[in-house]
Amino acid sequence: MILDRILEPNDIQKIDPRDYAQLAQEIRDFLVQKISVTGGHLGSNLGAVELTMALHLCMHFPEDQVVWDVGHQSYTHKLLTGRRDGFDELRKYGGMSGFPKRKESPCDAFDTGHSSTSVSAGLGLVKARDLQNKDYGIYAVIGDGALTGGMAYEALNNASRLKTNYVVILNDNNMSIAENVGGVSKYLRRIRTAQPYRDLKVSMENTLVKFPKGEAVVDTLKRYKSGIKQLVVPGMFFEDMGITYLGPVDGHDIDAMTHMLKEARKIPKCVLVHVITKKGKGFLPAEKHPARFHGAEPFDIETGLPIVNRTKSNYTDVFATIMCKLGARNDKVCAITAAMPDGTGLKRFANMYPDRFFDVGIAEEHAVTFAAGLAAGGMRPIVAVYSSFLQRAYDQVLHDVCIQNLPVIFAIDRAGLVGSDGETHQGLFDMSFLSSVPNITLMAPKNKWELSDMMKYALTMVSPVAIRYPRGLAYDGLEDFRAPISYGKAEVIYEEEDIALLAIGSMVKTAENVRHALKEKGFSCSLINARFCKPIDEMTVTELAENHKLIVTLEENVKTGGFGEKVLDYVSEHELPAKVLVIALPDDYIEHGNVELLKRETGIDDDSVLKRIITEYVGLCQ
Amino acid sequence: MILDRILEPNDIQKIDPRDYAQLAQEIRDFLVQKISVTGGHLGSNLGAVELTMALHLCMHFPEDQVVWDVGHQSYTHKLLTGRRDGFDELRKYGGMSGFPKRKESPCDAFDTGHSSTSVSAGLGLVKARDLQNKDYGIYAVIGDGALTGGMAYEALNNASRLKTNYVVILNDNNMSIAENVGGVSKYLRRIRTAQPYRDLKVSMENTLVKFPKGEAVVDTLKRYKSGIKQLVVPGMFFEDMGITYLGPVDGHDIDAMTHMLKEARKIPKCVLVHVITKKGKGFLPAEKHPARFHGAEPFDIETGLPIVNRTKSNYTDVFATIMCKLGARNDKVCAITAAMPDGTGLKRFANMYPDRFFDVGIAEEHAVTFAAGLAAGGMRPIVAVYSSFLQRAYDQVLHDVCIQNLPVIFAIDRAGLVGSDGETHQGLFDMSFLSSVPNITLMAPKNKWELSDMMKYALTMVSPVAIRYPRGLAYDGLEDFRAPISYGKAEVIYEEEDIALLAIGSMVKTAENVRHALKEKGFSCSLINARFCKPIDEMTVTELAENHKLIVTLEENVKTGGFGEKVLDYVSEHELPAKVLVIALPDDYIEHGNVELLKRETGIDDDSVLKRIITEYVGLCQ
Repeated sequence: MILDRILEPNDIQKIDPRDYAQLAQEIRDFLVQKISVTGGHLGSNLGAVELTMALHLCMHFPEDQVVWDVGHQSYTHKLLTGRRDGFDELRKYGGMSGFPKRKESPCDAFDTGHSSTSVSAGLGLVKARDLQNKDYGIYAVIGDGALTGGMAYEALNNASRLKTNYVVILNDNNMSIAENVGGVSKYLRRIRTAQPYRDLKVSMENTLVKFPKGEAVVDTLKRYKSGIKQLVVPGMFFEDMGITYLGPVDGHDIDAMTHMLKEARKIPKCVLVHVITKKGKGFLPAEKHPARFHGAEPFDIETGLPIVNRTKSNYTDVFATIMCKLGARNDKVCAITAAMPDGTGLKRFANMYPDRFFDVGIAEEHAVTFAAGLAAGGMRPIVAVYSSFLQRAYDQVLHDVCIQNLPVIFAIDRAGLVGSDGETHQGLFDMSFLSSVPNITLMAPKNKWELSDMMKYALTMVSPVAIRYPRGLAYDGLEDFRAPISYGKAEVIYEEEDIALLAIGSMVKTAENVRHALKEKGFSCSLINARFCKPIDEMTVTELAENHKLIVTLEENVKTGGFGEKVLDYVSEHELPAKVLVIALPDDYIEHGNVELLKRETGIDDDSVLKRIITEYVGLCQ
Repeated sequence: MILDRILEPNDIQKIDPRDYAQLAQEIRDFLVQKISVTGGHLGSNLGAVELTMALHLCMHFPEDQVVWDVGHQSYTHKLLTGRRDGFDELRKYGGMSGFPKRKESPCDAFDTGHSSTSVSAGLGLVKARDLQNKDYGIYAVIGDGALTGGMAYEALNNASRLKTNYVVILNDNNMSIAENVGGVSKYLRRIRTAQPYRDLKVSMENTLVKFPKGEAVVDTLKRYKSGIKQLVVPGMFFEDMGITYLGPVDGHDIDAMTHMLKEARKIPKCVLVHVITKKGKGFLPAEKHPARFHGAEPFDIETGLPIVNRTKSNYTDVFATIMCKLGARNDKVCAITAAMPDGTGLKRFANMYPDRFFDVGIAEEHAVTFAAGLAAGGMRPIVAVYSSFLQRAYDQVLHDVCIQNLPVIFAIDRAGLVGSDGETHQGLFDMSFLSSVPNITLMAPKNKWELSDMMKYALTMVSPVAIRYPRGLAYDGLEDFRAPISYGKAEVIYEEEDIALLAIGSMVKTAENVRHALKEKGFSCSLINARFCKPIDEMTVTELAENHKLIVTLEENVKTGGFGEKVLDYVSEHELPAKVLVIALPDDYIEHGNVELLKRETGIDDDSVLKRIITEYVGLCQ
């Protein structure tokens, strides 16, 4: 195996060029084999094998630096920098991250996870290099999907002023996670298919030379207007900004890429190298179903099918179903996603109501303000978004939706611990950053039926509403408790005394389990499903405080600014008699790993919660 | 006066076209006269007089809708929609807002305040119109400065897919608040100055016709490459995205504009109309000093000079001075602003250390991640930004700076109540949205010396730090208290018993005044300057709780997720004996008005605080 000779950074440079193709094949086989076991981002990595090899042939690590946009395509980079052994524990707790991490290797120049940050971060590295009079190479690798994010454009706008070298590589596979959208995508497609026009360039010059008079030439010029653009300077979109454009080049041709990358490195400016790749390249199921193999669960290599077949529905499925129903009942209902029609479950709505479905590309900021516009125009927009990506649109929620009190509904998926994607993707902050926003109502369902009920309820409101629910299987317990949703009101499930468990969202299930255990130990214990994080149910909190010694709040969110602090604040301000114990996530980022394990590590699993409550309660009674 | 005939929306359409020029002049005189008294955004409004008139001649209000990007240029729109009387109370509490407000008039289609939102909001209005099978006109007016914001690009990328009419007007004055930056600006400049090339078009066609052979033509083509671009399609940057480009047109020529706007309205696509205006047009001081007259204090019309001459320094001045010192002492120190070199006080640093100063344009997201890159590359970046604009970069702070624990310093100006700009510009949320971010240290200085001390201290740290300080005069009291900053430690100013005032930032001054009043009434009262919002000083809180009956926390930030809740949480969790009274801003947006008045209205002025404390304390003692 050629791959066996890659033990540390830069080892690829000792490989005979005639073996590159075989090495690429071995890397692909390795990735497919490993990811089929651990799960992970397959398609983007298979697409970037040769591109990464070409970079590693032109760079010297760790002096030279590369910033991987989003970072899920960095597996080959990890392999070529001596992290082969890490793949057995990929995305597992304590194991190797699926994203670049500076703490993992000096060859990882900058941590990424969210989209469209690489050009900004790389430009910072470039300026730091220049100010320190150094001359190493700095590269940013950004996908065409990430290029629809506004930050990338802000960064290119600034990079265009550079007078030193900075190589931005556009890894263009004509895809975001799903199919790419919008004007920029169309433009790139035109460049990709510009070959006929480039042939035309030659024939036109011949034409000009041969014709005795120029009228025909002028006509030709006019007729092939868009051809002319490509003819004069392909990639003029970038040239117009002041960025040198090189390409397009075949992203699976290592020779062509190394040649172009070396040329690019010589130019004392920001240079954009346009590389055309195929997502999933070399593994047929991934080539055919790029969205499915974007972030894949463990799968069977022969068939490409997931190893574990889900029989129960997750919250995304529940959301998908209710969205179709709401769309049928109310023709004002619109759905918006930022490049996540599959992940958010909006695909079915999109098929049924294509006119009322909007995939805006990787552009959360626009998504939210666009929704505000729809609402101001009389529609009922629902923005489906992952919790960690909604962070991108905090100002748009606060400034464009909530100041005007517009009836936009935010369906916040992946709220809470998400598991193997780790720090950058955990949804730990939404209850905090949304709680301080005036005018918004914030809910979280206890089980799958309640998510549907809350969606229906949200549509009866005429102000902004956010509903957060976690990744993974939808809880189907407590099915007998389905009291109608009432504004700002909690749902009392079991009413006893001494201890009151006041849980929100995913933690109602935990509270239910903990209550069973407490009952077995002889404690008297109420269970309340909070439903609303904002506003909190002050009357219920008052009653609980009067009838219990201890109120335990439970939430899958950081403590600071979250649900529990609001309850505590209320109890303290009104000098209510009960002690409040806030159970929430710690003030820290939480790495990748199995969700159950992460819950144990952070003290919000059944056992830890039980122990804390007993300790607290026993202490109170002494 | 022609202006006297404008009493309600659409009245301008009854005016004789021969009187347009005079009306424009009257509007300018009116605006200069009114704004010289009330203060307000002068330059942008003077620049947009004819553009607004042209729009009002082509539109019918309130059916047709216009979204004003940022919105500070909407004064003429307010005047033409019957709000002339409002200008006497412009930006005053209870009076007319300086920005569009749906609650103020049905002719205001969408509230704005922050930059680069208009194309998104307008696109939402367009889709709402189309889905409801209506056909009114929708216009977005965006400045070339706002076009550097990524959101605008995300929106254009989506608007390019439209198959119905949407008119985006690029109000191009070659300025943000200060001079515009970057590739897009350069590109627009090229279009603006493209006249020679358009003449060239004619001469080239002649050339082609006359020459018997084409070689020379090919040479010409190659030599005038950039000319060719404009020749074939000016505004190709936009055309490339699929947006129809019309222009450029003189933004002070009403006829030309109405003609082009009418043409634009007919095209079933997104159309960009490129209008060239002059900021401050018609008032010489504003033409000469556009940055000074962007947001002007009341001024003398003859001289253009501010009526009130500040003799004391504000926090921005203090920041400006310390930045120059820090830049001299440490050549790793860099400063970053998003188009606010004047407002943030970085202008002096920029003049002294131009290589280490970065104005990235209106692009807060990029600014923060760019700073993260600088820090990862070994520099010490300081991002100077207004509190309400940092909301734009919440994810970049959380995801790009703080996960990697990079030593970026955020100097957060205008934190707290800002006054006459109102809801969209108040800095009420930063302590909340930053408190839930792991790894960050959050401070606020009590007076002008402490801001300098904190800046110096922040540079000794190797992790992210934010320092927030308010708009307006820097407090110069408590000058004898300047204990060295120590990580996470509060500063005890007066140590007594019974009541402890634990104040942060601007509220230390309030606490000092309130303490005087309490002392006069015979209360025993400690005063503690918290300094750190995150982490809170747990040891001091513990001591205070043990030695006082009542701890009063004071902050100029919303209560939810802020400083006081953290103190309360700690006191409750550790079952400390004291009662905590949290004084903070209410869970609401706060409109424009004099800051002192707003403090009274929200209960954080000296008198209100004093009353609340006495009531609370007397209640406790009963």
